Formats: sequence, structure tokens, C-alpha cells
Amino acid sequence: MFSIITNMKRILLKIEYDGSRYSGWQKQPERKTIQGEIEDAIFRSIGEKVEVFASGRTDAGVHAFGQTAHFDLNLPVPVSKIPQIINNNLPKDISIIQVKEVEDNFHARFSIKKKTYLYKIYNSSEKNAFIAYRAGWIKEKLNISKMKEISNLLIGQHDFRGFCSSNTATQDFVRTIFDIKIYKKDNYVFIEVCGSGFLYNMVRIIVGTLVDYSLDKINKENVLLALNNGNRNFSGRTMPAEGLYLKETFY
Amino acid sequence: MFSIITNMKRILLKIEYDGSRYSGWQKQPERKTIQGEIEDAIFRSIGEKVEVFASGRTDAGVHAFGQTAHFDLNLPVPVSKIPQIINNNLPKDISIIQVKEVEDNFHARFSIKKKTYLYKIYNSSEKNAFIAYRAGWIKEKLNISKMKEISNLLIGQHDFRGFCSSNTATQDFVRTIFDIKIYKKDNYVFIEVCGSGFLYNMVRIIVGTLVDYSLDKINKENVLLALNNGNRNFSGRTMPAEGLYLKETFY
Repeated sequence: MFSIITNMKRILLKIEYDGSRYSGWQKQPERKTIQGEIEDAIFRSIGEKVEVFASGRTDAGVHAFGQTAHFDLNLPVPVSKIPQIINNNLPKDISIIQVKEVEDNFHARFSIKKKTYLYKIYNSSEKNAFIAYRAGWIKEKLNISKMKEISNLLIGQHDFRGFCSSNTATQDFVRTIFDIKIYKKDNYVFIEVCGSGFLYNMVRIIVGTLVDYSLDKINKENVLLALNNGNRNFSGRTMPAEGLYLKETFY
Repeated sequence: MFSIITNMKRILLKIEYDGSRYSGWQKQPERKTIQGEIEDAIFRSIGEKVEVFASGRTDAGVHAFGQTAHFDLNLPVPVSKIPQIINNNLPKDISIIQVKEVEDNFHARFSIKKKTYLYKIYNSSEKNAFIAYRAGWIKEKLNISKMKEISNLLIGQHDFRGFCSSNTATQDFVRTIFDIKIYKKDNYVFIEVCGSGFLYNMVRIIVGTLVDYSLDKINKENVLLALNNGNRNFSGRTMPAEGLYLKETFY
């Protein structure tokens, strides 16, 4: 008798990583990537060569508190043991923090409902060696209420081509932003953007737009032109990857 | 007229660094080191080839909140401008946080009175991607009062050869520990060791001894044998470099 079909499980991982030493999520030859490290760790710990599908790729230097990714497992490994056995074979800056079995038709990327990114800005005139690779650094004092004012324009369903890097293959630029939270703590400004999905560099450009507006480098008309006419020249700077964290995914 | 002598200033730098991407303080060919980066940055920003003398070397992966180092400057650069002009030429994980002019006979290493190291332990059964390279990880729950009990034995002047790595050229093993503070915050245990000076790996072995005693891997007789007979086999493990921070130097 063959039991291949009955043993097959679709497993969803929740993953935390410090992305600063990796060339992003997606596997690439000759490069250290998050996907590559996880697939290697699964092979070393469970003995199966699998492909792991994430909720979305993160770029080089981008971090995650809660990336999610699924893979199919044929061996009868108890689900509860998976985090520990994979973690033991993962580098110390990547950690499986949760695992569960999902339906066969579940897909980490296509089943997603919404996603929250956190952008961490170190807002101080003083250099700080320990924020390097962990936050974007803005020396000039940011004005939180100006940032909130402009963030309100972006909430809702819009064509976000004015907030997207030009090197993208996307045809559909319409996305919904459900919420943008902005708050200050010590020398940091945190910006949380929750949306249906994001275009290439969209969160980093949204944050750069809030920053540039707060510092009077662009005005409200610029932001409206970027939003209504889809012109990238009118939105703000692209903030560096190192301040960006994929915080949570929702299915 | 020559003004070389009158222009010569001895400058003391206070330096903060995340040591995780460096092969320690000391300059080495073909390696990224803190000393090498600082000397390069001084040359690029001020145009002088100088040698920078630290309060002591830190090993690969060790960090600093307050390393101190001096160098001699011949050009008439205003002292107050030095941090910013060097910082602009330093990598983002090394920062000059303070500068002052000192006497000609001051020496960052030989004039030192005492020094404080901080060791940061992440004490949790859960893996954490963001403590990697920034803290030592102990999964088993540490007992702070047991650690304090054993730390009291080490305070004072002792021959610390039992708390020193064997690959050292030192002849004199007598050092004074003025104070050891141990405190818990969230999932971390912090150990601050203040002493007249430290042997090779001494802080990491002291912390490893507190940890191993707390976890019942060694007993008090072991620690006393290490202390009184100078036998390294009886003290605890050498904690990893990544949890160690040079916190402050005193002159």
C-alpha cells in the first residue's frame, strides 16, 4: 500500500529574521538568502528537498518579525516539533517562531488578506553605531503631526504607481491601504502601514514621502500629484531597506 | 619659523561600535578592524596618517559603548569638529561619540585606572533572530541570587590565571575587581564587571562561571579551586564574544 497522499501535509511557518546579512528572501545562486537558508535547514533536519513559498519576497537588508511561508511535507514529522528541529539547523539570525498545518489549497502568497509593515526611523542628530542595519536614520527632527496629516491622504484604495519603483513588471497598481500608524518612542519614529498588498518599494516610498513632507522638502500638492497622476517624481525619497520590517500577515 | 611642535595635539576619542562585522580592534592586513577603519577615516577626513592607541584591544565580535583611544594630530583642526568629520568617513556601525584634548604624556592604555565591561545574556528558551551577534544566549533559566553569591568571591585583588585563556603572553595575572553588578531586565541578564584591568577572555570566563554555577554545572569548591589554585579547568565556560560590550574606561 502507498501512503504518500495521506502523509502529505501543508505546513505554514511564521518566521522572524534579521535581514542585514542576506540578499533578501528569494533564493539566488551564490548568495545567502532567507529562502535558501530555510530550504537548506529543512533538508538537513527533515531530509526533504522542499520549496518554501513566502507571503511575498523581502528585499536585501529588510527584516521580518512575522514573515509567513508554506511548504509541503511528505514525512510524518510531528508538526509541533518542526520549529525546534529547523531552528537547530538555521543560522542564529533566522528563527521559526510558529508553525501550523493548513489546508491543501492554502497558499502563503495567494491566500493573503492583508499585511503590515513596520518602518523604524532613528530620529536624532547623533550617530548611533547600534542602529546601523536596523533602522533608517533621519538627522533632522521629524514632525509627527505633519506626517499623520499626509498619511491620511494615502489611506484607502488608490492607484499607487506614483509610490512604486520604476523597475517593476506589475500591470495592476491599485492597492488598498487600511491604516497607517505613526508614533514616537525615545529617539525613534515608528510607522506601521497595513495594506492589501504592496508594490515594489511602496512602503519605503510612502515613508520617504511622510519624511520629506515633514521636513518641508515636498508640499501637499506634490503628494496629491503623485497620488492622482501616478507620477513618481512628486512623491518622496525611497527610505533605505534596513529600517523595514515585515511585521504581520493576515489570512 | 616652524610651528610643528606648537600645533601638536594629543586627542582622546570615545568610540561606540557594533563589533559584529569586524575582526576586533587591532589592525590586521586584509581584515576589517575597528582601528583600521578609524585610522583610514582620520586619513580621509584630516589627511594625516596617524596611529590610534586604544585603552585595550577588543576581540572579534566584541562591541563598545565607550572604548577610548588617543592619537596625535599635527594639523590645526578644531577639536570640537573632530567627531563629525571623522564620523562622516566611518562606516555606520562605528561612531566617535566624544573627543577631548589631553596632555602629551596621557596614554589611552597606560594611564587607565579602571574599566567596566557589560555582558548581555539573552535568557530565554525561545530563539530570537534579533539578539544574534548582540548577546550571548542561555536557554536555561538563570538564578540571579546564585550568580551574585559567586560573584562576591571574585571581588577584590586576586591572581586570575584560573579565569584566563591559556593562549596569553601575560606574566602577571594579578588583577583587582572592584565591583560586579548583576541585574535582570525583560528576557535579559546584564552583568557589569568593573576592574583595574582584565586578562585575555577574563570577563567572558567570569560570566561563564556565574552562568555555570547558576545552572549547577560547577559548584562553589570548583570556583574556589580556580581562584586559589589558578586552575582554568575548574572555572566556567568562555561565553561568546558577541555578548560583550566595553562600557566605560576611567582615567
